Amino acid sequence: MRYDGTEFSGWAAQPGRRTVEAVLSEAIGRVLRMASPPRLTVAGRTDAGVHARGQVAHLAVPAQLWADGEARLVARLGSVLPPDLRVFAAAPAPDGFDARFSALWRRYSYRLCDDPALADPLDRNRTVWYFRPLDLAAMNTAAAALLGEHDFAAFCRRREGATTVRALRRLSWRRDGIAVAEVVADAFCHNMVRALVGALVAVGEGRQGADWPARVLRAGVRDPGVRVMPPHGLCLEEVGYPADDELAARSAQARRLRVSRTPSGD
Amino acid sequence: MRYDGTEFSGWAAQPGRRTVEAVLSEAIGRVLRMASPPRLTVAGRTDAGVHARGQVAHLAVPAQLWADGEARLVARLGSVLPPDLRVFAAAPAPDGFDARFSALWRRYSYRLCDDPALADPLDRNRTVWYFRPLDLAAMNTAAAALLGEHDFAAFCRRREGATTVRALRRLSWRRDGIAVAEVVADAFCHNMVRALVGALVAVGEGRQGADWPARVLRAGVRDPGVRVMPPHGLCLEEVGYPADDELAARSAQARRLRVSRTPSGD
Repeated sequence: MRYDGTEFSGWAAQPGRRTVEAVLSEAIGRVLRMASPPRLTVAGRTDAGVHARGQVAHLAVPAQLWADGEARLVARLGSVLPPDLRVFAAAPAPDGFDARFSALWRRYSYRLCDDPALADPLDRNRTVWYFRPLDLAAMNTAAAALLGEHDFAAFCRRREGATTVRALRRLSWRRDGIAVAEVVADAFCHNMVRALVGALVAVGEGRQGADWPARVLRAGVRDPGVRVMPPHGLCLEEVGYPADDELAARSAQARRLRVSRTPSGD
Repeated sequence: MRYDGTEFSGWAAQPGRRTVEAVLSEAIGRVLRMASPPRLTVAGRTDAGVHARGQVAHLAVPAQLWADGEARLVARLGSVLPPDLRVFAAAPAPDGFDARFSALWRRYSYRLCDDPALADPLDRNRTVWYFRPLDLAAMNTAAAALLGEHDFAAFCRRREGATTVRALRRLSWRRDGIAVAEVVADAFCHNMVRALVGALVAVGEGRQGADWPARVLRAGVRDPGVRVMPPHGLCLEEVGYPADDELAARSAQARRLRVSRTPSGD
């Protein structure tokens, strides 16, 4: 599914708030004539203001309701959902599939405009305007030193008893007029992408050397020099899953890891 | 300048409405410490909901106020203007320059999403969702027959005594996932791009043959089969001006043409 996070209070349902989960669950329940809005399990629990182009969720549907509703489900959701939330596919999940625990990786983008001459009002809800010229080469040098499996506690909001070990597979910046980051990890803790971007921005504008983010990582505690960047530059682009016949094994493994570590964010 | 037309009631100042002209004029007057908001002359008087990425306007500024304010004008406008309106350049105009009458051509784009699977909530304010598959090849065949100087009365909102003769230089569709039109003319009458797009969409979805828009053009009267498409797909991308030493001549010529024809839109 895709959404513009601007007018949502994030993914997770909260009483009295307009959240993606609540709006989608209500729409699915209505379209499939379920007795009550279904419980959804999602790949990435995005924060308020964060967008998605490749979000994935799963739910349980009684067989008869599915049989009745499957054929026109996506078209009906298109009529029922608001324009800032679109579902473009719905299918029976293979055995063992879990939108959260089967995921092998999540890919996010982060968009920063560092030149006032390039600020585009039509993109303002998805691009952070930060008008200091950024040295992307220095940012990429700094980013490369963060790759691999580490305890990212220095870049996460701590939760008691929760692990902050993650495998960061890609973190790179390219210039497309504005600066665009591509970030891939097995999973992310809360605020992790926005804090990583904040650390690299400090390098890009020359406030810190290119070795500083890796030093913060190794220190293992939050550093006041790391600014958590605004949510609206962030977009969940894609979630990767294994082939069908490896799903159950992956899910069991991810669950075991999360249980032994206690989960924290995605 | 660039703007997101969503929350503006078009370019032209109207009492009690938030228009681009009013917001910009107030900001320029304030930043340059002018006695009152200046009168602006614009290249394309866009309607409510229409966007711009390359809009151009001119105004008269007392020499001393310009000398005092020029250096920091664009940066100060960046602080004063709302995020849906950005000015990225301001410079003394060459002799004979007129933002409206010196323009040789205007280039617009129009964005149509004809496939629900491609509907992107992040683009919804600038892309019209029209979920019937469009045959762009047929639309381009139909469009080619409209090129050249013609009386576009069939595609314009009529104004008493106003000419509707325009030279259409380019009108072509390409597929970039969604369907995107590029439209270039010396000038446009009111609603002209949106009506041309409406005529071509009728061809693209098979309601009319590829020869129909040219027949409507030749008939010279508005045809109920031509739907004026919604404004939010339309964006003024660029305005072309002649070299400095040809400006005065072009302006005089355009003014003469408009006076003899009586102007109507741009």
